[in-house]
Amino acid sequence: MSKWTHRHLVDLHDLSREDIEMIFESANSFREVNTRDVKKVPTLRGKSVICLFFEPSTRTRVSFELAAKRLSADTINISGSSSSLTKGETILDTAKNLEAMNVDLLIVRHPVAGIPRVLADNCKAGIINGGDGMRAHPSQALLDMYTIQERFGKIDGLHVGIVGDILHSRVARSNIVGLLKMGAKVSVCGPATLMPPGIESYGVDVVESVDDLIKEVDVLMLLRLQKERQKQKYLASVNEYSTVWGVNEKRLEAAKKEILIMHPGPTNRGVELSGDVADGGHSVILNQVTNGIAIRMAILYLLSTVRDEGLVSTQ
Amino acid sequence: MSKWTHRHLVDLHDLSREDIEMIFESANSFREVNTRDVKKVPTLRGKSVICLFFEPSTRTRVSFELAAKRLSADTINISGSSSSLTKGETILDTAKNLEAMNVDLLIVRHPVAGIPRVLADNCKAGIINGGDGMRAHPSQALLDMYTIQERFGKIDGLHVGIVGDILHSRVARSNIVGLLKMGAKVSVCGPATLMPPGIESYGVDVVESVDDLIKEVDVLMLLRLQKERQKQKYLASVNEYSTVWGVNEKRLEAAKKEILIMHPGPTNRGVELSGDVADGGHSVILNQVTNGIAIRMAILYLLSTVRDEGLVSTQ
Amino acid sequence: MSKWTHRHLVDLHDLSREDIEMIFESANSFREVNTRDVKKVPTLRGKSVICLFFEPSTRTRVSFELAAKRLSADTINISGSSSSLTKGETILDTAKNLEAMNVDLLIVRHPVAGIPRVLADNCKAGIINGGDGMRAHPSQALLDMYTIQERFGKIDGLHVGIVGDILHSRVARSNIVGLLKMGAKVSVCGPATLMPPGIESYGVDVVESVDDLIKEVDVLMLLRLQKERQKQKYLASVNEYSTVWGVNEKRLEAAKKEILIMHPGPTNRGVELSGDVADGGHSVILNQVTNGIAIRMAILYLLSTVRDEGLVSTQ
Repeated sequence: MSKWTHRHLVDLHDLSREDIEMIFESANSFREVNTRDVKKVPTLRGKSVICLFFEPSTRTRVSFELAAKRLSADTINISGSSSSLTKGETILDTAKNLEAMNVDLLIVRHPVAGIPRVLADNCKAGIINGGDGMRAHPSQALLDMYTIQERFGKIDGLHVGIVGDILHSRVARSNIVGLLKMGAKVSVCGPATLMPPGIESYGVDVVESVDDLIKEVDVLMLLRLQKERQKQKYLASVNEYSTVWGVNEKRLEAAKKEILIMHPGPTNRGVELSGDVADGGHSVILNQVTNGIAIRMAILYLLSTVRDEGLVSTQ
Repeated sequence: MSKWTHRHLVDLHDLSREDIEMIFESANSFREVNTRDVKKVPTLRGKSVICLFFEPSTRTRVSFELAAKRLSADTINISGSSSSLTKGETILDTAKNLEAMNVDLLIVRHPVAGIPRVLADNCKAGIINGGDGMRAHPSQALLDMYTIQERFGKIDGLHVGIVGDILHSRVARSNIVGLLKMGAKVSVCGPATLMPPGIESYGVDVVESVDDLIKEVDVLMLLRLQKERQKQKYLASVNEYSTVWGVNEKRLEAAKKEILIMHPGPTNRGVELSGDVADGGHSVILNQVTNGIAIRMAILYLLSTVRDEGLVSTQ
Repeated sequence: MSKWTHRHLVDLHDLSREDIEMIFESANSFREVNTRDVKKVPTLRGKSVICLFFEPSTRTRVSFELAAKRLSADTINISGSSSSLTKGETILDTAKNLEAMNVDLLIVRHPVAGIPRVLADNCKAGIINGGDGMRAHPSQALLDMYTIQERFGKIDGLHVGIVGDILHSRVARSNIVGLLKMGAKVSVCGPATLMPPGIESYGVDVVESVDDLIKEVDVLMLLRLQKERQKQKYLASVNEYSTVWGVNEKRLEAAKKEILIMHPGPTNRGVELSGDVADGGHSVILNQVTNGIAIRMAILYLLSTVRDEGLVSTQ
């Protein structure tokens, strides 16, 4: 087995297929910990892990925090808007300050794309991108891919459809990068106003109708629709979105028998998908959540195995 | 000794007198832990306990969090308004997500009565009601009753008076249910506008004057007055409330020698009670707080002893 | 070695020179813990430490929280505005409630000067002043002095200049008290509108020009400028402040070769100091942050060695 060499997790672009497989293998072993009566291993005892969240988040923060605690790390939460957290200092100064406190790992969520990269390029503490702007959300894509791999025993050769607001979705971007790297075919589908121009250059197909897409794919990822998009004129109405793009049992009849329905959460029942689809036999939405802990334990563990030897690039 | 069988703590209606005594016995043994130099036992090591608070709370949250930490559980806080926490997903989905993270116990406070019951009926994780709307606050009533039992050696046969805003008080409702179950006589007393119509059907007496009540009771529970009630026209003025219903040393002269003064906190000194009564020899207000930790340790411990075998009813 | 006798840390006025040296010695031993692979010692296992912050704070809170966790204490955060935290009860009642939960140490930040003293005079739990109004911020001054001592091997006989908004700065006040006690000479410098009348009575010199000051001092402490001061008419403009009082490389040419540049953070680059000075060879800004953890571990440890024997004065 090859050796993990990355001190940061900023973007799946930085990882090789072997790196991703190493994360999956590590997650396999941590998954069992989460089903024990005593869900705790001493792996990261005496390490300090900080969640530095400049955007509100419940599930990603809780998932990372639980993962860190089950590895016996000390965890600290810092959350708020950028202005309240940095009080005029640069975010790099904020990170340098935390690093000066001998923090080992810093999980950063920020509305501005690129911030985690800047921190990774300048910090000795390990930087984990917990979501930056519309750019990347690598831990989410890793847990999504891990869930696919768990069900199909592979990712290579599968066809994955992603439906919804591709334009604003860092989940979509990270999944596209990761899935293509792992050998999947990826198609995207959604309202024209929410489809980034030139998305084909990523190596994905654009499919116009969700009904056409459903017939073809092994996995259907539904993106959360921010209801604000209607007010922002991206959508005629949430209702229309639901009618044209929402997945219900009827629409799912045309799908392959083994199709997986995925959603990063939180779901809008009745918008992206109907309640019966969310709770139905094809849905692996809660498996994604369960796997999220194991994947994040693996990320925290692997990054902590790489000692800083001065500043190195994030690549 | 009988066996604890409840996976959830939603309402004292669900508990038998024996159940409540079992909680008290368990609290007896945990009480000592809180006076040690090292206030820590390994009872819940490797368990994950989440405080999910949709209403602001300092003391209940801190009390549960300290109780869990002293039992060596991992604790996570999630707090905020409903909209910010659930982002449009149903609260059941929020709870299911946390459960999918292999969370053991979920302490829920919510402004809508009945939410903890819905979660308990549908979740494998243990649900603890940390206060729901005006309905119930079972851990508060348990610590109140435990404090009475500690002082009098019994609850059966005592007369407890509850004074104030009965209408909006989940503390009053849970205490009425619990105290009657334990064999106490309960009288309520307060402004007519803040007295729920038909409250007698709970099995309590309504007493018109706090001076009449004070003469009769062994225990006087004063409820916190929300000052907003004046603006909401429930009260002529906070000042008048204090004059008519507030308990001061003078008024207390008519009481039994052993009367206990209780208050769930936070107190409004000069409104529900005078400062000298709050700090006086009859007051057990801080004992309630101390006992709160032991009672909550007992609740967390007992619920965690019941393994989930699929979904079962909360009864 | 003499014995630590203080149950509270409210103000450096209360400490002797020997006390401060005892904190430094203790910090020396904890400093090493923070560089270990496993940054954790069992010193405060089973102790409960609460951060009760009535003013927003990231770095002080995180520094105390990390210090406590690395000592194996259980930590709880309570933060918000006074109204939301106390809901009308007195802050002494809030503290008494936490104390009734057998909390060992309470770190309090409050916008009103004197609050920590009131709590210390009335509580058995150890009170640590995390900053009160414009009065005192003792842990900050201790880490500042510790950083000076680390670099020069002494404080006695050094000349320390403090530049900026002396009027509103609790950091300045605590440093003045502590540095004079340790035998340093202290000069202050800043806009006349931000210089407290009669400051000389503290035993400090007032220097009119930062260029004059720079030539004389061994240490230059720059205070954070609250940009609101411009709107509040204390300043003509932030720009002018930067021109007249800001420290840049050019201005620093006149300094002693070994001058230390200090700042309590968060820095406003381009206002109090230029970026190249902040990152330059004289700057010990990040060392201050690193030392902050060790100093706070020492404070938490030393205070926890003093057992409460009833209420005693804070002196």
